[in-house]
Amino acid sequence: MSDISGDAIAGLVRDIAGRAQGAARRLAMLPTGVKNDALLRMAAALDSEAGALTEINARDVERAQANGQSAALVDRLRLTPKRISDMARGLREIAALPDPVGEVTRMWKRPNGLDIGTMRVPLGVIAFIYESRPNVTADAAGLCLKSGNAVILRGGSEAIQSNLALGELLSKAIIAAGLPGDALQMVPITDRRAIFEVLKLDAFVDLVVARGGEEFIRAVVEQSRIPVIRHDKGLCHTYIDEETDLAMATEVAFNAKVQRPSVCNAMETLLVHQRVADAFLPAFCDQLKAAGVEVRGCMETRRVVPWALEASDADWDAEYLDLILAIRVVATLDEALDHIAHHSSRLSESIITTNYQHARRFVHEVDAAAVFVNASTRFTDGNEFGFGAELGISTQKLHARGPMGLESLTSLKYVVYGDGQIRA
Amino acid sequence: MSDISGDAIAGLVRDIAGRAQGAARRLAMLPTGVKNDALLRMAAALDSEAGALTEINARDVERAQANGQSAALVDRLRLTPKRISDMARGLREIAALPDPVGEVTRMWKRPNGLDIGTMRVPLGVIAFIYESRPNVTADAAGLCLKSGNAVILRGGSEAIQSNLALGELLSKAIIAAGLPGDALQMVPITDRRAIFEVLKLDAFVDLVVARGGEEFIRAVVEQSRIPVIRHDKGLCHTYIDEETDLAMATEVAFNAKVQRPSVCNAMETLLVHQRVADAFLPAFCDQLKAAGVEVRGCMETRRVVPWALEASDADWDAEYLDLILAIRVVATLDEALDHIAHHSSRLSESIITTNYQHARRFVHEVDAAAVFVNASTRFTDGNEFGFGAELGISTQKLHARGPMGLESLTSLKYVVYGDGQIRA
Repeated sequence: MSDISGDAIAGLVRDIAGRAQGAARRLAMLPTGVKNDALLRMAAALDSEAGALTEINARDVERAQANGQSAALVDRLRLTPKRISDMARGLREIAALPDPVGEVTRMWKRPNGLDIGTMRVPLGVIAFIYESRPNVTADAAGLCLKSGNAVILRGGSEAIQSNLALGELLSKAIIAAGLPGDALQMVPITDRRAIFEVLKLDAFVDLVVARGGEEFIRAVVEQSRIPVIRHDKGLCHTYIDEETDLAMATEVAFNAKVQRPSVCNAMETLLVHQRVADAFLPAFCDQLKAAGVEVRGCMETRRVVPWALEASDADWDAEYLDLILAIRVVATLDEALDHIAHHSSRLSESIITTNYQHARRFVHEVDAAAVFVNASTRFTDGNEFGFGAELGISTQKLHARGPMGLESLTSLKYVVYGDGQIRA
Repeated sequence: MSDISGDAIAGLVRDIAGRAQGAARRLAMLPTGVKNDALLRMAAALDSEAGALTEINARDVERAQANGQSAALVDRLRLTPKRISDMARGLREIAALPDPVGEVTRMWKRPNGLDIGTMRVPLGVIAFIYESRPNVTADAAGLCLKSGNAVILRGGSEAIQSNLALGELLSKAIIAAGLPGDALQMVPITDRRAIFEVLKLDAFVDLVVARGGEEFIRAVVEQSRIPVIRHDKGLCHTYIDEETDLAMATEVAFNAKVQRPSVCNAMETLLVHQRVADAFLPAFCDQLKAAGVEVRGCMETRRVVPWALEASDADWDAEYLDLILAIRVVATLDEALDHIAHHSSRLSESIITTNYQHARRFVHEVDAAAVFVNASTRFTDGNEFGFGAELGISTQKLHARGPMGLESLTSLKYVVYGDGQIRA
């Protein structure tokens, strides 16, 4: 598609964004029932067109295989009947959630009699840039529409046929429900210049949410005139405290590493207090080995687990996204906290302890989107937190942090009721 | 100061930011009492050094006058004993506010037994770029420190001597209270390149808050790799509904225009329903005229107020910040809502009405940081909202909107308490 001129791309993208902005003002005022009807129609369309979607998706899959893409990428790309019905179920779950728009989260009275409240309102137009998984498309569309926002979707180029088919099907469903069709638009070209044109349109687009590799996201943030919420790196730790339940530590740490190693909230580094290293590490590492996990340890780890590979300094900063675990034995809780402060990506951190003060210190002192006591780092997730779905997991502190559900797609306005008050 | 090399400026700014980041981790953990002690010491230092401060400030004032700066700028620049004691009082008020850090705003239980809560945490390092008023310096320092953030201050070049003196005095006070001195730093040079160097330091600075003219803020947003919250333009409307209390309408609209016309929340355009134009406008405009306000009206306004000047299309988009008012008569509430949607800067909008449904429509349909019923647009202000002080008034939707108090300077983290939960 690189034969399209830059001007043509800019014009196309600007047209999409302008129409999205027009739709956003109407969307912001829609009653909850109308939005929910649209979501249910979207779900029904997915169910009834599942066969056609899998056929179209097969073309993307074939092309990816022909291009020699990795098995992992091809797997993420594939739409199975099960995945399509999961998308439909996700939309029905979003329909069942309370509408965040118009919620007054609190209201207070001032000494002069003014009643001041904070009301949730939509952001306006959201541009969502994501990778090859086409099933994210339905979640993103559902969350944006329910929160009263127009959305411009730009999925991975590998999934272009699947995403265009999904976009058409979902657009028809929202039009049938009486929503403006421009509320949900797909950027129809795979040329990367289209992304960078979107990033210039701060007069039309209120927020960019970008999911992808660290390097790509950095380029997006640097080029964008629009605020960007990024979902990039996850380098998560589990710390086994000196006072701990060894069976729980084994189960939780194993889950954090092995249950789904390719995702951002999987554990990459295990920290173990020296007082429990002998009791904990040998059996735990045997279990890892049996599950195919490569263990890379510090010197003290290798004293108790001689077969472990030697960890280098680079391992403490490595996001493996794979069946590899770095293990470091620490002398104190402070040493663990320091290690986390220096190496964590500040996404998902966990302590396994039976000591009240240690749990309390960990919760207060670790700076991360989610801090766990006695639970797997894998729980940092919109569904697991009860948000129904997520647009991504924000790895930054501004506006939204952690799993992004409906509320993170809203802003607020102050609503103020008076009886003629003036300022002195 | 333009004889400093770009490299020297970059090095200086980077050193400031690096030290601020070091201080931020300590600040985040400080007990409330220690932070409040620092705020009270800052207030006491302002009181005891008021004489020296006014003397140093006189040099800035003299230089500004010699440079032919406007009387308005010179007035904003001036530190009087009253203004200094107001700064001290502001700091004491911030000390009296609840500490936002560590507040768990809600907590819920998941079906698997996990307790998930949202805890307020500091952002880290805030860079605050503002204009010539040195009294903003104390408010900004107080709000940032109370919310556990390190702050880098960069005031207007006209106020450089005053700001450096303030910075030194406040730094000494916080060091005496046991806070790291690097938690509060002033950029000591007036060269504008220093601002643009700060904007590159996304590895050290978490948020930029920028107050100033529209064009300057636009340059800041375009250059910044760090999220920017802007406080720029205010084009505010008051709408006099067809069903209204004319005495209240007169008093509130007059206040919105005249009480302090140079600020962003002053009214710039008055919209009047045609059914009350004859009864309302002649007497109201006479009152404006007596207060020295220039009136520019639409054709219908000039029918009832023949001496009014003719408004051009440009007037509906003009932020006068002066004793000038544009007046337009509208046929319906819808026409008023459309006018506001097209011309408002979305900061502060007010309806004066006795009709319940009209009030309700206005509150829901107007997209602005603050929407008022029967009160002056001038109330969009941190103090008036009960926040003690404000860092600025955000004119955007992301992260913070409207007056920025302590809460807007925090992020959140999810704190999750479990009993060994793992993901299936």
